[in-house]
Amino acid sequence: MKLRNLIDFNDLTLGEWDELYELAVRIKKNPAEFRDRCRGKILATLFYEPSTRTQMSFQTAMMRLGGKVIGFSDPNSSSVSKGETLRDTVKIVTAYSDILVIRNPIEGAAYASALYSRVPVINAGDGGHLHPTQTLTDLMTISELKGSLDGLTVGLCGDLLNGRTVHSLIRALGRFKNNRFVLISTPELRLPDYVTKDVGENGNSYIEVKTLEECIGDLDILYMTRIQRERFASKEEYARQSGVYRLTTDKMKLAKPDLAVLHPLPKVDEIAYEVDDDPRTMYFEQAENGMYIRMALIAKLCEHERTGRSPAYPLPEGVCCPNPRCISNHEKYLPRLTKEVSGETRCCYCDSRL
Amino acid sequence: MKLRNLIDFNDLTLGEWDELYELAVRIKKNPAEFRDRCRGKILATLFYEPSTRTQMSFQTAMMRLGGKVIGFSDPNSSSVSKGETLRDTVKIVTAYSDILVIRNPIEGAAYASALYSRVPVINAGDGGHLHPTQTLTDLMTISELKGSLDGLTVGLCGDLLNGRTVHSLIRALGRFKNNRFVLISTPELRLPDYVTKDVGENGNSYIEVKTLEECIGDLDILYMTRIQRERFASKEEYARQSGVYRLTTDKMKLAKPDLAVLHPLPKVDEIAYEVDDDPRTMYFEQAENGMYIRMALIAKLCEHERTGRSPAYPLPEGVCCPNPRCISNHEKYLPRLTKEVSGETRCCYCDSRL
Amino acid sequence: MKLRNLIDFNDLTLGEWDELYELAVRIKKNPAEFRDRCRGKILATLFYEPSTRTQMSFQTAMMRLGGKVIGFSDPNSSSVSKGETLRDTVKIVTAYSDILVIRNPIEGAAYASALYSRVPVINAGDGGHLHPTQTLTDLMTISELKGSLDGLTVGLCGDLLNGRTVHSLIRALGRFKNNRFVLISTPELRLPDYVTKDVGENGNSYIEVKTLEECIGDLDILYMTRIQRERFASKEEYARQSGVYRLTTDKMKLAKPDLAVLHPLPKVDEIAYEVDDDPRTMYFEQAENGMYIRMALIAKLCEHERTGRSPAYPLPEGVCCPNPRCISNHEKYLPRLTKEVSGETRCCYCDSRL
Repeated sequence: MKLRNLIDFNDLTLGEWDELYELAVRIKKNPAEFRDRCRGKILATLFYEPSTRTQMSFQTAMMRLGGKVIGFSDPNSSSVSKGETLRDTVKIVTAYSDILVIRNPIEGAAYASALYSRVPVINAGDGGHLHPTQTLTDLMTISELKGSLDGLTVGLCGDLLNGRTVHSLIRALGRFKNNRFVLISTPELRLPDYVTKDVGENGNSYIEVKTLEECIGDLDILYMTRIQRERFASKEEYARQSGVYRLTTDKMKLAKPDLAVLHPLPKVDEIAYEVDDDPRTMYFEQAENGMYIRMALIAKLCEHERTGRSPAYPLPEGVCCPNPRCISNHEKYLPRLTKEVSGETRCCYCDSRL
Repeated sequence: MKLRNLIDFNDLTLGEWDELYELAVRIKKNPAEFRDRCRGKILATLFYEPSTRTQMSFQTAMMRLGGKVIGFSDPNSSSVSKGETLRDTVKIVTAYSDILVIRNPIEGAAYASALYSRVPVINAGDGGHLHPTQTLTDLMTISELKGSLDGLTVGLCGDLLNGRTVHSLIRALGRFKNNRFVLISTPELRLPDYVTKDVGENGNSYIEVKTLEECIGDLDILYMTRIQRERFASKEEYARQSGVYRLTTDKMKLAKPDLAVLHPLPKVDEIAYEVDDDPRTMYFEQAENGMYIRMALIAKLCEHERTGRSPAYPLPEGVCCPNPRCISNHEKYLPRLTKEVSGETRCCYCDSRL
Repeated sequence: MKLRNLIDFNDLTLGEWDELYELAVRIKKNPAEFRDRCRGKILATLFYEPSTRTQMSFQTAMMRLGGKVIGFSDPNSSSVSKGETLRDTVKIVTAYSDILVIRNPIEGAAYASALYSRVPVINAGDGGHLHPTQTLTDLMTISELKGSLDGLTVGLCGDLLNGRTVHSLIRALGRFKNNRFVLISTPELRLPDYVTKDVGENGNSYIEVKTLEECIGDLDILYMTRIQRERFASKEEYARQSGVYRLTTDKMKLAKPDLAVLHPLPKVDEIAYEVDDDPRTMYFEQAENGMYIRMALIAKLCEHERTGRSPAYPLPEGVCCPNPRCISNHEKYLPRLTKEVSGETRCCYCDSRL
């Protein structure tokens, strides 16, 4: 396997995805076989914003492979607060460790880290941009439950405008065939055009609907997300609408017997308490799968040797990227790196059009 | 051993206690024999209020058994702060781990967690309610020093009103025979009636006294506790009284040569600095025993297999419990669970009378 | 090896230093050989002020030796905040662990801890006083790059007044022979007289200069440090002077091909971004060496058996030390301990003259 870093799910070829999925399934079946796989190896988790859930999932994954974990979950207690560059932090931490997991509120931070890292880098979330191990988790769960990632009817419900998880899942499933997405949201929170416009390939399609009731009976997968109160104009508006998108036992009665309900978690009140006991809810199994797929990913990436010094890059001239949330506008030494995607020039860090 | 969770010391039969104690003594004598006992296992420590001491003791215990540890010590950096229910947190964390230790300021939180946990649960303190591993630590130390838990004269000094540790110790020793408790406190901080009223069984008894001097010569065990300044009406009142209950070398001269002084630690100034050097003070040995008895407990509980999904419980109707600090009044989905104790109906979570 | 604690680099004989250095080099060459050296052992890291970098370095070192780590990085979440004495914390934590690393903003805290510890103690920084493992790191790097610690021309640039690291390095190199120190700083930030006055021994010498340009061509080692903005009278003054001491590619052109640039890190802007790519910069290698020399130190100290109770010390009478930042003025029970150094009486905790 040549994959060195996981910054974006689309870095993986479908062959690499298959290999990773099969490894995760093998680990899940027989974890004891893998418990010394990463013995003597150290995973560093640099969490520039707290996310206990994601951090625990990576820690557990490494520990169950026999490895050990260092890191921080609060940049205020780290050298970051003394004004150190991301580049320096990465160079030092990857002098100590064998694999790096980074979460950072600034878009492109994981890509930037990989430039200077002596060890493989995993993106555990870079602002509103990408969160590829959540996508791996979702795909593993769907694949395990449905036996395939083709030909599914997948409902996505809640905040489709701001949900990084939903965007990534649609892009990822869009690489497979004949899937039909049912987008369930208010007009204010509908999926952005730049996501929907790519859906047409590989025989995939989408429709938009306003209520859960009108579509739940058709779904193979229902992917729920949290709606944040502050996205609505007023409390009243929130109260009025949130019920429409709340998953209740009544709505579940309209669904197929083999529906699988997923959720990236944590959830608040978008799913009624009693729905948790419905055997079609699979979000806790999904969370557990997150551990197995991360084990597979870490096990694969740990096969790489640590490199020597990072290469020298030219200092940038002018502004790299129009996106103010892009790491290239925060860490001034970063080289200007662009790529061509469907005839457009894009920023390598944050994927913005230039 | 059938014990699956440790929520309350009284969950243990005396036979189970004996077994646990003997295992702890064996571990203490020969720790190397146990250093791979929990290899490949993961302990999760969910500390909803910080308690470095207790958390370190559990971490060390698991590490000395060859296991690994995940967890948090500050709920603000966890998904809890996003409004996740305790039930969801427990379900997810026990999808990752093999044993769960929980500390939570709300009474009954450990009991509630055990309802949804797929792995054994240990209560590391639920508000002012219970702290059973402290009780295990105390009993192990007394048993080791005195050879028995029967027929002892045990002084308890300090804040007997608010001291959860003292209440638990009296209840626990009350299950053994012919112990005599000497309660040493101000009238304001005396032991509550609901604790003393059960002391009469098994030949046990108690007396109340006002000073250390008048009783220290009779004691086999002196259990000191911290008096918090804010419990007194005024600074002057505190200054006047705290000296009466301060353990000094002068008072130690009145004690028997085989007195053992215990303290749950941390201590502030209730014991004079120089008393630490008296060979009859045993609180640091007691802290060390805390590690061994936790090792024994973890080793035992880790023998259980992880279960599948937690059972479905009916949603509650009406208020479960009159105690506003009870978890059933904070987590609204918790089923109404009650038990009969000495002819009274009590809340299973917090033991309040209904 | 008889060394039990590392409080001050000068606790080491030169023979012990050699032994430690050789072990570190062996570990660096063949880390796999040492990966079970500390199996079953626990390192406690008590960080009373946060220092992620140093703490990570110790954690990694212990983990790469097969050991495990407990500790805290924030005293507010520990029993310290309840008013516990340092002595009690040390006694309890060393009942759990096999080796103790302590960082504390108060001078002499590590020395004081060693009085009560049942296991070896490593000083990871006690206020502005000492930071011996940084000195070990620096010496290892110089020795590895230059083959010797004698006969070198060593530039030290930046804040020489407040830099604990620089003072320790000069003292340490002063124990070797024929080194020449070039002190590069503003008059306000020059090295204190009490450091320079001891330089004359063993054929060592120093000169003071005002600019990097005038001396960089002579240097074998250039040791850079951070200048804090607040050390200057005004922003303008800082802006004017900081450029003089900033290491740029232009200045690097004046240097010898085998110059080695070191820095204790983190750095801010005292070294231009592009200088990092100069192969003569060695600070990231230095950081990595910090891990290997700490591995060597931990491996050596872990050979000691844990002791029983700490000895009793007499309570002090009067003030121990004129230094208000000395631990003996903060922890009132500490015995008065002094030593004779070059005919002067000094405080054992903080080295102040009495």
